[in-house]
Amino acid sequence: MREEILMMGKRAREAARHMANVNSGVKRQALELMAVALERESQAIGSANEKDIQAALEKGLSKPKVDRLRLTDKVVGEMVSGLREVAMLPDPVGEITRMWTRPNGLRVGKMRIPLGVIGIIYESRPNVTVDAAALCIKAGNAVFLRGGSEAFHSNRCLTNILQGALKDAGLPETVVQLVGTTDRDAVLDMLKLEEQIDVMIPRGGEELIRFVTEHARMPVLKHYKGVCHLYVDSQADLFMAEEIALNAKVQRPSACNALETLLVHQEVADKFLPRMAAAFRKAGVELRGCERTRMYVPDCVPATEEDWYAEYLDLILAVRVVNGMDEAVRHISTYGSDHTEAIITENFHRAHRFLQEVQSSLVLVNASTRFNDGFQLGLGAEIGISTSKLHAFGPMGIEELTTTKFIALGNGQVRS
Amino acid sequence: MREEILMMGKRAREAARHMANVNSGVKRQALELMAVALERESQAIGSANEKDIQAALEKGLSKPKVDRLRLTDKVVGEMVSGLREVAMLPDPVGEITRMWTRPNGLRVGKMRIPLGVIGIIYESRPNVTVDAAALCIKAGNAVFLRGGSEAFHSNRCLTNILQGALKDAGLPETVVQLVGTTDRDAVLDMLKLEEQIDVMIPRGGEELIRFVTEHARMPVLKHYKGVCHLYVDSQADLFMAEEIALNAKVQRPSACNALETLLVHQEVADKFLPRMAAAFRKAGVELRGCERTRMYVPDCVPATEEDWYAEYLDLILAVRVVNGMDEAVRHISTYGSDHTEAIITENFHRAHRFLQEVQSSLVLVNASTRFNDGFQLGLGAEIGISTSKLHAFGPMGIEELTTTKFIALGNGQVRS
Repeated sequence: MREEILMMGKRAREAARHMANVNSGVKRQALELMAVALERESQAIGSANEKDIQAALEKGLSKPKVDRLRLTDKVVGEMVSGLREVAMLPDPVGEITRMWTRPNGLRVGKMRIPLGVIGIIYESRPNVTVDAAALCIKAGNAVFLRGGSEAFHSNRCLTNILQGALKDAGLPETVVQLVGTTDRDAVLDMLKLEEQIDVMIPRGGEELIRFVTEHARMPVLKHYKGVCHLYVDSQADLFMAEEIALNAKVQRPSACNALETLLVHQEVADKFLPRMAAAFRKAGVELRGCERTRMYVPDCVPATEEDWYAEYLDLILAVRVVNGMDEAVRHISTYGSDHTEAIITENFHRAHRFLQEVQSSLVLVNASTRFNDGFQLGLGAEIGISTSKLHAFGPMGIEELTTTKFIALGNGQVRS
Repeated sequence: MREEILMMGKRAREAARHMANVNSGVKRQALELMAVALERESQAIGSANEKDIQAALEKGLSKPKVDRLRLTDKVVGEMVSGLREVAMLPDPVGEITRMWTRPNGLRVGKMRIPLGVIGIIYESRPNVTVDAAALCIKAGNAVFLRGGSEAFHSNRCLTNILQGALKDAGLPETVVQLVGTTDRDAVLDMLKLEEQIDVMIPRGGEELIRFVTEHARMPVLKHYKGVCHLYVDSQADLFMAEEIALNAKVQRPSACNALETLLVHQEVADKFLPRMAAAFRKAGVELRGCERTRMYVPDCVPATEEDWYAEYLDLILAVRVVNGMDEAVRHISTYGSDHTEAIITENFHRAHRFLQEVQSSLVLVNASTRFNDGFQLGLGAEIGISTSKLHAFGPMGIEELTTTKFIALGNGQVRS
């Protein structure tokens, strides 16, 4: 096993070398051919997926888990249109991001290049196979995939289709490789390939991500959880605050950028909280409040210390009344996850202070936390959200799948 | 031990939160006060250093190792002037690197913020204590240091001085912390603090760096070795090629950006190699050449496969005659270390092809490999050179000790 994984890593490294110098046009055509091939092979995809579904049902997997495995026509259609959207994005590779001249006349610049080989370890959803591969290819990388065992047949079928399209585009099939086994040890072997894999992106539950972080020798781009906060300032437009809080909590409660804790300035708690609680009640949201919150919302469940740390991903919201900005910022830095925090205020100074002092991947003024998403922020795509600060912090688009090298243009400069 | 290291980590996290919102003026003053304190305490530094030197001599450490430990007046003077130079650099924190507007009117931008807590694990040279701390502080970070056991007294003395200056500047002393033991297990404990330390920078030999990479749960910015190449094209200015090759090899052979392998186009080998060999002979450089090299330089030692991988860090140079650009690029990608490569050519197309195709941290045209250095490239400072691609690739200055968060300014936007 170890030998086979190592060989795959070496082939990926070789493919990445090739990809780094492929023109935009060729990459775009490869992505288009992939879209065409997925449409053409939809029946084969369906049969492969059926095998996984059957096995999952036999194993007695829960309904949500089986649903996530399912490659419906709609999901396949989304993979196809996703491929075409990525194909049309501008190519980040080759961009000179800066250039300057040194006193000795040496012109120094930074040029964007692919990262190289990107490892993706993911669970259940087989569409990640296509979505992740598309972004990696667009940015000139090779990709080394290891999907969940429940989706093995689907992932293999999708990978074969992608490889066929790569070949048709004149690119090495090894630009996309899938670990051909469901053996758990293969993951550990993969995590040791620091010479062959430049970065590992785990996508799945917290347990998977912690396992990858603990064992990986290469850098990991990861995202544990989103305990997102909204702070309603004493100078907030309370109608706006209500609308944004409701959107942030209920528009899609299962998302990592959904609101989990509402912080309310004590001066507006009496006006804001009863009305807000009524709106949440109507939307089916359970509130868990601090003692002061319960003065204004008597039927509210008492919050415990655990609630401040909670990522509910459900129609539950923790609510706390705070003395002001200092306490709000301190609460966020104590209990938050560096993901997404927003302030609602009409006050210029407080808006700027919040923007400066809160060190989360997205800090918003007067807008919903639900905007922390690559598409919503205008990156054109998203491979994940990073809550660790190195390389990328926040949603990662195609640019985050590249790095920059230095270039220097001289006319004989030597160092004295 | 584990408990103490964890407490240090928590204090560092707290100090980093404070530092993130400290004005440029305060950080500048803290660095200036550090410079003053080092000058004032030079005697104490000398006595502490003397203890380390005595212990090293008793242990029978080699002369170069003892020399690297020594804090001479010159070294202390360099630390002091280094602090003042860093103090005067522009503050990277708070810079808005980009800003754009979404169709819904939401203004989205990226703002530069400190990384947080930076861990530095280093060997022997005690001046790293001051140099690294200065850069981390300038970029608004807290720093968690673990120096080599041979330099323990020197490092402790320097840390105490820095902490006193931090206090005088009104900053938490815990912005700079040094692990107070030479126990090796402390390193392992430190490497597990993924929640408290945002990035680890190992500085020292390859063995230390591999150990840190293997055990760290947080990202590591590292630099294994520099096997740097110079390719002399058939259309090179051969006088320039000779001058640059000589500079790259002999100006400081022990540096990671020194030339290790010279690649020469077959069409100019007869004209270039005998003359170049004579110059190298005069400079005391031993040449190890391929068969074709030895046709033009008969007294040259035959190169073995190992020589192509070698980082000599000495007056030794591997030389290979290649059929052309393709073979040169292939040689570099097979044997190179992604550090620094240069081409000497007058040909526009070949210069551009080399710049595009070679994926090293610095790629030069008509200039010496010795320019791969933060000061030489104009970054104003350098904390190290990264040869892995994530976050930073090449010399790392103050900007590389920061990251960017997203900010979004709205007027009530919600997601539909």
